[in-house]
Amino acid sequence: VVHIDWDAEAAEKGGFDTYMLKEIHEQPQALTNTLMGRLHDETGEVDLDIALDPACFERIQIVACGTAFYAGLVGEYLIEQLARVPVEVDVASEYRYRAPIVDEKTLVIVVSQSGETIDTLEALREAKKFGAKTLGVINAKGSSMTREVDDVLYIHAGPEIGVASTKAYTSMVGAMLLLALWLGRARGTLNAEKGAELLHGARELPRLVEEALSPERLANIERIAEKYKDARDYLFLGRGVNAPTAFEGALKLKEISYIHAEAYAAGEMKHGPIALIDENLPVVVVATKSFLLEKTVSNIQEVRARKGRVIALVSDGDTEASRHADDVIFVPQADEYVSPVVNVVALQLLSYYTATLLGKDVDKPRNLAKSVTVE
Amino acid sequence: VVHIDWDAEAAEKGGFDTYMLKEIHEQPQALTNTLMGRLHDETGEVDLDIALDPACFERIQIVACGTAFYAGLVGEYLIEQLARVPVEVDVASEYRYRAPIVDEKTLVIVVSQSGETIDTLEALREAKKFGAKTLGVINAKGSSMTREVDDVLYIHAGPEIGVASTKAYTSMVGAMLLLALWLGRARGTLNAEKGAELLHGARELPRLVEEALSPERLANIERIAEKYKDARDYLFLGRGVNAPTAFEGALKLKEISYIHAEAYAAGEMKHGPIALIDENLPVVVVATKSFLLEKTVSNIQEVRARKGRVIALVSDGDTEASRHADDVIFVPQADEYVSPVVNVVALQLLSYYTATLLGKDVDKPRNLAKSVTVE
Repeated sequence: VVHIDWDAEAAEKGGFDTYMLKEIHEQPQALTNTLMGRLHDETGEVDLDIALDPACFERIQIVACGTAFYAGLVGEYLIEQLARVPVEVDVASEYRYRAPIVDEKTLVIVVSQSGETIDTLEALREAKKFGAKTLGVINAKGSSMTREVDDVLYIHAGPEIGVASTKAYTSMVGAMLLLALWLGRARGTLNAEKGAELLHGARELPRLVEEALSPERLANIERIAEKYKDARDYLFLGRGVNAPTAFEGALKLKEISYIHAEAYAAGEMKHGPIALIDENLPVVVVATKSFLLEKTVSNIQEVRARKGRVIALVSDGDTEASRHADDVIFVPQADEYVSPVVNVVALQLLSYYTATLLGKDVDKPRNLAKSVTVE
Repeated sequence: VVHIDWDAEAAEKGGFDTYMLKEIHEQPQALTNTLMGRLHDETGEVDLDIALDPACFERIQIVACGTAFYAGLVGEYLIEQLARVPVEVDVASEYRYRAPIVDEKTLVIVVSQSGETIDTLEALREAKKFGAKTLGVINAKGSSMTREVDDVLYIHAGPEIGVASTKAYTSMVGAMLLLALWLGRARGTLNAEKGAELLHGARELPRLVEEALSPERLANIERIAEKYKDARDYLFLGRGVNAPTAFEGALKLKEISYIHAEAYAAGEMKHGPIALIDENLPVVVVATKSFLLEKTVSNIQEVRARKGRVIALVSDGDTEASRHADDVIFVPQADEYVSPVVNVVALQLLSYYTATLLGKDVDKPRNLAKSVTVE
């Protein structure tokens, strides 16, 4: 809990109405802090100052809660693709009680903004009992988890006051990209050329996120939020590396607007949730540049055929994907592997404007605590 | 698609109003067919007539869609606990495009009622390219998947006409229990005594499900459905082996009543979805006998403290857990490992009565197909 008086608080918001909006705008800087000192163009490698041997793990488990869990899902995708190590992701409250299958060949990565989330901390302790190597992806220096893991990769996002995480999420995803690059290069599954290309993609992220925050884009998203703000429910869909973007977008909307938003991998829609679709249900679809974009456009058409209203996230310049949607949020083009960082910014803003237009206190949503230190 | 005229259809419903209700009541017989010929009391082992060597896998991947995916999640829990092999579960539409990490030491289990689900079939083909051993957990004899897997464990649930799966789900979960017992005994991680105990639990299932379908229990569930039928949203919570029970309960309610129901692992609620809770939100909590029951009761109290209305699934005779809930659905006591089969029956009925009271066509819900054979 942060106790500060109103004058100090206004000053600390740096001209923004809320901490959350300030933190959304801090993302280019936070990403610069997460990424830049660690990318080495001359060698095409990343330098994470991690003592653990990247080649000695046979399996990786990522354990986290809430928003950090979704960052873990992006990590799973990136690490499996780039480093070809099997990765599982589990919510900490389940992991700690399920007698997880762990040994000294397992790397357990705990992800937490505060480093104090009790479920994640206890999951870490459980994993250590069985000899796991452990790594923390953490924001808060000196927090409990940082003292109990073998090694830490700080995300360096700076203090986050808004209860609904924004800049910590994008920095966590940035850190996951760094880990995937590190593991892929060290394990020989990622060649120098592809590594350099991804390094370049990572280096672009602060600029792309800055671009995603342009006044014109904000005005467009606010207009869409106004149009759909009275919806009772929302569906979010995404595929592959952007399935977690849909999950995080839905969580954000739930947390601050109290609208019941739920996300699915886009291909799973027809196996059940499609029954919900009618003219009252806005469906947000992440339909940015991807080798699977054609499949996602099919999903958009399925939603439209059942009178659902589609808000599509589309890459700048894509006139084909955009013509199928009711409303379009254009986002800067990015390499698919780094696109979750860019895409989620639009969804943070959609939640932010929706909640604000509904008169909710976005910095202190009901029922929620910034860091959950009781079970 | 099944084409039959009305007279024949009425006859085939065997006195029930709908195929779905008939199939719910067929579950004791379906489970008998799934389990009984395969349990050998004299040796404390199961005989699955599977030629694959149960000791040669280092990892297992379970791939499925919709309801079958949730059966896979129960399988993950049971196999990891009893056989100590790492298991991952993935939705087929994601798996088939994610370049999964698979080799000849991986057992890929595909789960499908129809054996024709195109996403699952294509995922199977993807896994085979990389040399995976494959096993189908399938209902329909002679279906496409049965011809492409190395081996089949038929669930023998009989024809299922209702679009929302009921008896196929419980039989799939029964099959997962059989697989966990088979792997555990063959790999030496499950001793004869514990094996015999679980065999006994499995043998009890048809009787317990019959008991779960008693007229008094049905009347109680119908009363609760009537009380909450106008709710716009529902939350479902469960832990451990019954987290998937909550997922399947929410899916069922979505599919046939079009109420937006969503499920979470109970311990994850406070990391976000708790923001949704107010006096209008019924929360169904699976709070049956478990080594984690105390934690689940804490979750119930958290919901109540925020004015949410709790419908608790409680084991017969448990007066402590039941006194915290607004409404209680008592279910027959079962060994925790087999309890998902018994517990889900109450949630099938809750969905069924809710949808029927709302005047929905439960056998042919809007937008849904019985088996999804297009991508």
